[in-house]
Amino acid sequence: MARMKAAFSWTAGFWLAVLAWSAAVVPRPAVASEVSSAVAPWIERHQKEILLELFDALSFRAVAAESEAVRRKAQWLRARFEERGFKAELLETSGNPLVYADLEVQGATRTLLLYMHYDGQPVDPSQWRQSDPFAPVLRAGRLEDGARQLDLAAQVGFEKDRRVYSRSASDDTGPIVALLAAVDALASAGLGPTSNIRVILDGEEEAGSPNLVAAIERYGERLQADLMVIFDGPLHESDLPTVVHGARGILTLELTVYGPKVPVHSGHYGNWVPNPALRLARLLASMKDDAGRVEIAGLYDEVVLSDGDREVPAGVPDDAEGLRRRLGFRSPDEVGATLQEAIQFPSLNVRGLRSGWGGKEARTIVPDQAVAAIDVQLVKETAADSQFGKILAHIRKQGFEVVERDPTDSERATHDQIVKVVRGSGSNAYRTPLDDPGALSVLRALRDLGIGEPVRKRTSGGTVPIAPFIERLGFAAVGVPTVNSDNNQHSPNENLRIGHLYRGILTIAAILRMEDDASP
Amino acid sequence: MARMKAAFSWTAGFWLAVLAWSAAVVPRPAVASEVSSAVAPWIERHQKEILLELFDALSFRAVAAESEAVRRKAQWLRARFEERGFKAELLETSGNPLVYADLEVQGATRTLLLYMHYDGQPVDPSQWRQSDPFAPVLRAGRLEDGARQLDLAAQVGFEKDRRVYSRSASDDTGPIVALLAAVDALASAGLGPTSNIRVILDGEEEAGSPNLVAAIERYGERLQADLMVIFDGPLHESDLPTVVHGARGILTLELTVYGPKVPVHSGHYGNWVPNPALRLARLLASMKDDAGRVEIAGLYDEVVLSDGDREVPAGVPDDAEGLRRRLGFRSPDEVGATLQEAIQFPSLNVRGLRSGWGGKEARTIVPDQAVAAIDVQLVKETAADSQFGKILAHIRKQGFEVVERDPTDSERATHDQIVKVVRGSGSNAYRTPLDDPGALSVLRALRDLGIGEPVRKRTSGGTVPIAPFIERLGFAAVGVPTVNSDNNQHSPNENLRIGHLYRGILTIAAILRMEDDASP
Repeated sequence: MARMKAAFSWTAGFWLAVLAWSAAVVPRPAVASEVSSAVAPWIERHQKEILLELFDALSFRAVAAESEAVRRKAQWLRARFEERGFKAELLETSGNPLVYADLEVQGATRTLLLYMHYDGQPVDPSQWRQSDPFAPVLRAGRLEDGARQLDLAAQVGFEKDRRVYSRSASDDTGPIVALLAAVDALASAGLGPTSNIRVILDGEEEAGSPNLVAAIERYGERLQADLMVIFDGPLHESDLPTVVHGARGILTLELTVYGPKVPVHSGHYGNWVPNPALRLARLLASMKDDAGRVEIAGLYDEVVLSDGDREVPAGVPDDAEGLRRRLGFRSPDEVGATLQEAIQFPSLNVRGLRSGWGGKEARTIVPDQAVAAIDVQLVKETAADSQFGKILAHIRKQGFEVVERDPTDSERATHDQIVKVVRGSGSNAYRTPLDDPGALSVLRALRDLGIGEPVRKRTSGGTVPIAPFIERLGFAAVGVPTVNSDNNQHSPNENLRIGHLYRGILTIAAILRMEDDASP
Repeated sequence: MARMKAAFSWTAGFWLAVLAWSAAVVPRPAVASEVSSAVAPWIERHQKEILLELFDALSFRAVAAESEAVRRKAQWLRARFEERGFKAELLETSGNPLVYADLEVQGATRTLLLYMHYDGQPVDPSQWRQSDPFAPVLRAGRLEDGARQLDLAAQVGFEKDRRVYSRSASDDTGPIVALLAAVDALASAGLGPTSNIRVILDGEEEAGSPNLVAAIERYGERLQADLMVIFDGPLHESDLPTVVHGARGILTLELTVYGPKVPVHSGHYGNWVPNPALRLARLLASMKDDAGRVEIAGLYDEVVLSDGDREVPAGVPDDAEGLRRRLGFRSPDEVGATLQEAIQFPSLNVRGLRSGWGGKEARTIVPDQAVAAIDVQLVKETAADSQFGKILAHIRKQGFEVVERDPTDSERATHDQIVKVVRGSGSNAYRTPLDDPGALSVLRALRDLGIGEPVRKRTSGGTVPIAPFIERLGFAAVGVPTVNSDNNQHSPNENLRIGHLYRGILTIAAILRMEDDASP
């Protein structure tokens, strides 16, 4: 009972912290659910075991390119699931194996496919503040705040602000260890999952998951489910529970506009030889208005938002004012009423410009060419092919001859304005409807944790490499991030806050135990 | 007499070659003037002496930064002028000395100041096809055509296509040696100069002539004259005699437009965080129309061309069609009816663009800033300060707040569009009137060489570092280039064609002997 009390006061303290994060949250009474009553005290009793398992899991050099280390980690993970009664195996692909674990639950009418990845981003050890990014380090707090290193063996007591520093701590090995702990915690309370559980662990996510779609053909039966739950990525910055219904896709383009074949002296030839940088500027300027709205015909056309479609994004408690201040700009582009509404629309973004030379290298020349690198963010309604066609039509309407490689002499002699358009790789968006029954069940499970009204993201802004996998599987998918948003994902000194590791265990346990919920 | 004949047939052969270069030239009968009758045979008799003196002059490591080598060359040159009866001295400056030589001519009513420079461009020996750019090499023709190296000591006979490869062969030591030879040739025929001659040799032209203006204060008396003649730069590509009345000036600017303080993810924030590359594109696009004409109010206003002002540029036999074909563009910008007319106007040229990343480095970001490097070419009527003011006014009219350093947080919070404008170094243009009596005398002297109607450039396109020197001296100045246009000036394997060296001697001799001419 004393232990229960300790867990409760942690929960309450956390709850107050959440309130402090965002005043926009409607508070709910902090009544512990069946899951948190069972799991929270179990976590407190098993802190050290959980951390030891996490440290073991992080000790492999599991970067997609290091196939031997990745395979050893896959074998180690398979064993961990087998210990817990799962039927586990490695699914071979053309690249690194997938770890697959399956738990059939008697009487369950629903099957969940839980997706995580066990590879991490490549590392540049010289940028890390520890000797080895694959030798996890426990610290008393944030490295940036000068937190000292702790000896795991000597650690006692519960300190939620401690952090584990290691590559893949948050992205995405921590959530796998949280799943293992959630299974243990529920078992110790005699509570099994309420759904059949299928776990798929990707060993190449940070390399773009190139073999995932092919695995559907080969292992299709095993991957069938009613709902996919993706445990990856950070929580919304408000630190509230988060459900993500989709991710934007992306189309990339590179435009090259031509001037003289070689740079020529701008004193001798300026006013006479056409300048490609100015022509490119005129082309780009034609694509957007002063308020940042795309002026390419039809680019937004397929996106029609219902009141509900606007309401959910409007409910995300983004700190827009703080973000504007931190990033240092006065007015946002006027595509949506809010940031979240803006990302319901496709975008057109100039991510790079190159022509001639500047700064100390500046030369008195008319450049030979000017290049713009563009990305077009996609939403579910706007497929890459169709957006590409609209952009090409717009470019042609501005009087440009479009070519796919450098122009020939004869093309140069025939057309005043020539642009090479090279389409890069990209992928479509995915999105699970807001009223999908499985997604609503997840929402309820998160709500019942009692740590704040969950943030619902109709779509996340970034793309995810597993979008084609989700599209091909064809059933609903939602993302449930669990890790701290300041985890230095994809950067040196990646870390996982212990409080968020424990919260991840609670979150995953709640989803393993979730009931049907058809209410919105 | 046989010798005279040989010289004449060379002249005639050259004349045919000139005709082949450009059909636009109105032929004149190839009647030898007093000067060419005297000088051409003298050259033929003294080929080896001329080349030996040139080789000696080129053997100093005369790059502005190598002050000891430059000073040795200055002393050597002073001695060469003294041998020829000039009063010669070194004029000390804060940098390298000027070589000054003075020849008073009895009865002369005009004084010419002849300007050349004895320093050369810096070298990267690894790019040269000879062991040392300061050890001159004689070749049977063009290196690019595989011409073999010749032994100077063994050379016999007159071969105008031979070339001397060495740094500063054409730019600008060759013309100094041609002047020395011209003085000798005239003396041997009993013909002295018709003007007082003052020679000023610059030892820092390739470093921007930083100490030339100050020398006027210190040595003003010596530098006074009625006309300055600049022997520097290549002939017009038609290979016709060329008189240059001015040079464009330059104003450089760097514009930085701001987005978020740090690059942000274009998936998460595209459509919301403003894009600086697009804003810069819109600003640049506002500055010029589709035909390349500047749309900044008043930028062209001071330039009003009379019929005569248009006629002289129209008479320059540029091969515009060939140039367009070689450079690979269909239509030139529509600022002037011809290239030469276009450069009578100031220009605005984007010489560099930088924002974010492209190609393999492309990242999914909204860049934090976008930079445009701009040069504005100036003409005599448009001073740098006034053009700068008009550009600033235009930028402000587009709604930009103009700052001189990176914006503060408070500026970012107050203004949607901010641009940092940094003005670089630059200089005004100079131009000697087309009807200046001294310039007309030079024109007549060139015409009388009988190798084609001289090309008159109202202004040359490029800037010259001596423009402020000319402006400060305050008397008329014309450029008379003499070297081959394919001399690889400022590049590795700089060279001087022997035929052009000899022609330079003839040209300079003609100017030393020139009479007054007031006819246009």
